[in-house]
Amino acid sequence: MKSKGQRSSGNRVLTFVAIFAILAASSIAGLAASETTSAGKPEEGKISLGARTLILPAPVWIICSYDSSGRPNAMTASWAGICSSDPASVTVSLRESRYSFDGIIARKAFTVNIPSTRFAAEAAFFGTVSGRDIDKFQATGLTAVASGLVDAPYIGEFPLVVECRLSGTYNVGSHVMLIGEIVDVKADSSVLDGRGMPDMDKVDPFVFATGSGSFYSIGESLGSISELRDKIGK
Amino acid sequence: MKSKGQRSSGNRVLTFVAIFAILAASSIAGLAASETTSAGKPEEGKISLGARTLILPAPVWIICSYDSSGRPNAMTASWAGICSSDPASVTVSLRESRYSFDGIIARKAFTVNIPSTRFAAEAAFFGTVSGRDIDKFQATGLTAVASGLVDAPYIGEFPLVVECRLSGTYNVGSHVMLIGEIVDVKADSSVLDGRGMPDMDKVDPFVFATGSGSFYSIGESLGSISELRDKIGK
Repeated sequence: MKSKGQRSSGNRVLTFVAIFAILAASSIAGLAASETTSAGKPEEGKISLGARTLILPAPVWIICSYDSSGRPNAMTASWAGICSSDPASVTVSLRESRYSFDGIIARKAFTVNIPSTRFAAEAAFFGTVSGRDIDKFQATGLTAVASGLVDAPYIGEFPLVVECRLSGTYNVGSHVMLIGEIVDVKADSSVLDGRGMPDMDKVDPFVFATGSGSFYSIGESLGSISELRDKIGK
Repeated sequence: MKSKGQRSSGNRVLTFVAIFAILAASSIAGLAASETTSAGKPEEGKISLGARTLILPAPVWIICSYDSSGRPNAMTASWAGICSSDPASVTVSLRESRYSFDGIIARKAFTVNIPSTRFAAEAAFFGTVSGRDIDKFQATGLTAVASGLVDAPYIGEFPLVVECRLSGTYNVGSHVMLIGEIVDVKADSSVLDGRGMPDMDKVDPFVFATGSGSFYSIGESLGSISELRDKIGK
């Protein structure tokens, strides 16, 4: 609590000090009450790394859109995730300065393209050059396929693609979250499991290590949630 | 375009047919124009899976908070991701009906706790039971540590924890995105690399396969972004 009594004098100062003392006492009492109701052991042992985006892991998704002249562009995004089940939705955060930004806002559409590990170099490339300077599809030889559902292209060679209609935006700070309602998910038949679902081993996606700036493949199955859950008693 | 003319008859049918023909022609013209400006090959080959959250991979993070009586709770979230660099922020989507929701809103705080693969069973458990019915910390024997920075607990045994101040919410539909400004990241010294950053191999996190409902470990490094990027000519 910052002192607001500097303009007061005489009895008003004394009154202020008395009120402050009461407020401070009740504040301390409130803190003590909060400490007893909010359980938890005191902190120890961990090293503070500061207010940084050092969470693991982050996805590596390629966001495709058209620019103002209708040219397909692709950029790599890792500040992203699924954000709703119904309507099925995904959020992707972009800086407004990114070349893709204006096109996505104008056409209210983008696609999320999940690369296999064999496209790790292309994903790194898409994340380090700008569509302002280069035609990324021409440079990589990948195919921009025109989505029939949304006004955005997807990458034909990637095993799993997600067509999104921009349903909203939320400004966080350096980045704007683009919320995309999933209109359709399309997959190569070769990456589906026996139930017709995208298979992790076959799609073979990879993740971003925020601390080291490296990509990592996916490893082995640890089991289904129901199998794993049964290992805990109760 | 679905026919809406079934209730019409006589001249009204003819009028409708004529209008429909004009609309169809202009629609085709519009489509042709759109095809010339928005480049891309026509679609072929991929199988449509529908408007579903079948994106790979999703993170497995444990969200900790206090309930209204100050009891620590933990729930597993995979509809989540980093969403801003400055301020460093993360978004986690929860259904309003989840037991954790009210406590996070009331205290404007939560923590994101990244489990190692040895905690896969606990992560499955935290995602399949409710804090309404059970004390999840008591059931698993894990330790709720009181954060000194935000009004939420974190899991002492987990190698990497992220303390967040709730900075905003965005209602997507079934889920509300909780946007958390990262106040601090804390790590066990044993999981840091030579540069003091969280090391993917040492933290040993895992991901969720949306299609199969399984957890998968992280595999091998594919290389740094700069190494990978150099494989693409130009």
